[in-house]
Amino acid sequence: MLTASICTIGDEILIGQIVDTNSSLIAKELNKCGIKVNKMISIQDDEDEIVSSLTECSQINDIIIVTGGLGPTKDDITKKSLAVLCECEEFRYDESQASIIADLCSRRGISLSQLNKDQALVPECCKVLPNKMGTAPGMVFTIKTKTERKVLLFSLPGVPYEMAHLLPSVLQTIQEEFLCENIFHRTILTYGIPESLLASKIEDWEDHLPKEIKLAYLPNPQSGVKLRVSIYGGDYIKSSLIAEEEIKKLKILLGNALYGENDDTLESVIGSFLLKNGKKISVAESCTSGSVSSLLTSVPGSSAYFTGGVVAYNNDIKINLLGVKEETILNQGAVSCECVKEMAVGIRKLMKTDYSVATSGIAGPSGGTETKPVGTICIAIAGPDFIETHIKVFNGDRIRNVQRFSAEALNLLRLRLGIQLL
Amino acid sequence: MLTASICTIGDEILIGQIVDTNSSLIAKELNKCGIKVNKMISIQDDEDEIVSSLTECSQINDIIIVTGGLGPTKDDITKKSLAVLCECEEFRYDESQASIIADLCSRRGISLSQLNKDQALVPECCKVLPNKMGTAPGMVFTIKTKTERKVLLFSLPGVPYEMAHLLPSVLQTIQEEFLCENIFHRTILTYGIPESLLASKIEDWEDHLPKEIKLAYLPNPQSGVKLRVSIYGGDYIKSSLIAEEEIKKLKILLGNALYGENDDTLESVIGSFLLKNGKKISVAESCTSGSVSSLLTSVPGSSAYFTGGVVAYNNDIKINLLGVKEETILNQGAVSCECVKEMAVGIRKLMKTDYSVATSGIAGPSGGTETKPVGTICIAIAGPDFIETHIKVFNGDRIRNVQRFSAEALNLLRLRLGIQLL
Repeated sequence: MLTASICTIGDEILIGQIVDTNSSLIAKELNKCGIKVNKMISIQDDEDEIVSSLTECSQINDIIIVTGGLGPTKDDITKKSLAVLCECEEFRYDESQASIIADLCSRRGISLSQLNKDQALVPECCKVLPNKMGTAPGMVFTIKTKTERKVLLFSLPGVPYEMAHLLPSVLQTIQEEFLCENIFHRTILTYGIPESLLASKIEDWEDHLPKEIKLAYLPNPQSGVKLRVSIYGGDYIKSSLIAEEEIKKLKILLGNALYGENDDTLESVIGSFLLKNGKKISVAESCTSGSVSSLLTSVPGSSAYFTGGVVAYNNDIKINLLGVKEETILNQGAVSCECVKEMAVGIRKLMKTDYSVATSGIAGPSGGTETKPVGTICIAIAGPDFIETHIKVFNGDRIRNVQRFSAEALNLLRLRLGIQLL
Repeated sequence: MLTASICTIGDEILIGQIVDTNSSLIAKELNKCGIKVNKMISIQDDEDEIVSSLTECSQINDIIIVTGGLGPTKDDITKKSLAVLCECEEFRYDESQASIIADLCSRRGISLSQLNKDQALVPECCKVLPNKMGTAPGMVFTIKTKTERKVLLFSLPGVPYEMAHLLPSVLQTIQEEFLCENIFHRTILTYGIPESLLASKIEDWEDHLPKEIKLAYLPNPQSGVKLRVSIYGGDYIKSSLIAEEEIKKLKILLGNALYGENDDTLESVIGSFLLKNGKKISVAESCTSGSVSSLLTSVPGSSAYFTGGVVAYNNDIKINLLGVKEETILNQGAVSCECVKEMAVGIRKLMKTDYSVATSGIAGPSGGTETKPVGTICIAIAGPDFIETHIKVFNGDRIRNVQRFSAEALNLLRLRLGIQLL
């Protein structure tokens, strides 16, 4: 199996000024091509550090992808360091990149400076991948290892969209130079079972998995626990068959907790269901304050089934706009099953929708009581012939509580709609 | 100067499934304490790899921060690997974490399994930083190097908010264990001026800064450009005086673009203003679909000034609930200054508030036209004696557009309220 390292060069990452999104994108694309990334590193703009780190990477990998440090200013020294690493003293002007640079400058109305021109200067030994989106070209180096093993090193600009535009050429070059191996990946999405409980639920299945199958747990409080089933190497069709067989068994074990695969989200599976069945939905929110609406409409095309919502933060709005009874709030409080029930009924009527969701809870940090602590959420789901309510308690800070309340509301909606994925 | 490495453990990062945001946050916080991060690495859940990489880090750094690999499942082996690294064979149950785990399980209504209990099992030699947000405790190890130099290794959970909640204890432990130098930091927050324009606006000031002052630009599309003014080392009181003097000049140059300092947000400065003046606000949203409400209520105590909102995704809701005229939508479209004007007037009346904000736009990917492309947003701000409208065009994907639309609405509200910070 081909292996790779990804190396990001630049102080702005090491001081936490920017989040490195390049490595993640590169890893995802390499992974799809059956190349295993076994290390990512971020280092400073320092020649010794660059040379020693990349030398180390070349000893254990077939491919090295370097991003960053290709700007025209003095602090960017990746090109020079790569020349040192490859023992290549000669530099040349690359014609293709030089003409792109001239064109870019003229389009931006900038006069072509020596600094700009020198962006097309590359070590003699490299192959250039022209960068049409910016001035710094992509470069491909072949590194000589002691064991005569071939190592390809790619140097790409750090600007994310320039890097992204060069990535297809990188993958093509890799496929031309190496015989790539297959990887099977499938992610199974669950909600509502904590990681440890899930682990014991599927323990027996996990223990009897064929040796080639790797299982990973990817927990996320907003979207539940994801289970990634992978097979590295071997025949892809055979791998798929083996994996599919096991995934089928897994799905049965997961039951209702299963809500989708790969890039699905709670809101996207709900959206697909509503769209397919020509149904509409509305939302009445108190403590989640627009967050459930916001999630539902994060799906492109959601205007086909999402009618609207009311954020009833103040009790007067709950009473006057949603028709919650004053006595309900007086006797049972705004955070009560009775209140969200009336909110759900009210919004469904107001917005004339098939279904509705309502939330009321205590996000914190203040507002908690002994019987209703911070983290308490009441949720109601209403439909043409049903109305159900739930009360749960979560544990987090204000922002996190709102995220969990909203995910919980969507999950309860999904369960009530009976969306089946088996 | 103290130096640190950050090490992320977990296959999900190496296959590009998630972007590592932890390293960036840790680096930023260490940086503020005057600790230089000279390397970040991401490695697999593999004992040999973990031990050898961390050994290497300990040879060049005073501090190592490890995140991830602390889940209860079989693929998570960080704890065991750290025990190997520290040659500590004995494990013990940590009482403080065990009681948090029991409490978490009971609150979630889950029975306490052996897997849960074992989350409190830690190598005998470590000090525990209890994690109130989750089951895996933070751990502090002291590593013995050959040169008798003290190296502290922190192991933190990979779930970002659990990690973030433990970070202050990490920084406190570092400050207790090492002699940290004084650092002056102040972050000045701006919105509405692009980075390059901001740089030329303050160029003269920047060129004449006292040598000890370091300036960093921290751009963020949702919250504008932040300017961090720092002085490392020296006498803190003297540093403060020098910096304050310069910050005063900077603020005058920034004018209206200045909206706060340090941890302020657009929504928090708006909230403080409304609270102080005893005013109330409501929101009518179309394309931002709850996101403006959600931002305003992310501030604790916002129920004192935020009354509520209507998400009017469907035009019928705009007409029936908010009182937008049918002709307005027919003649000028739902994405028009006239429509948001009527929405703002309508919601202010409906919710009986002093101020209101309304949004309608095209988040994409579809729905754009030649005159109103994807990224177009109309915003209205209404008050007791005014109503103003704005139309702008941004350039992003659906999610990003909604974020920018919402930030823009809050910024326009801030400007209209005349919140002064000088």
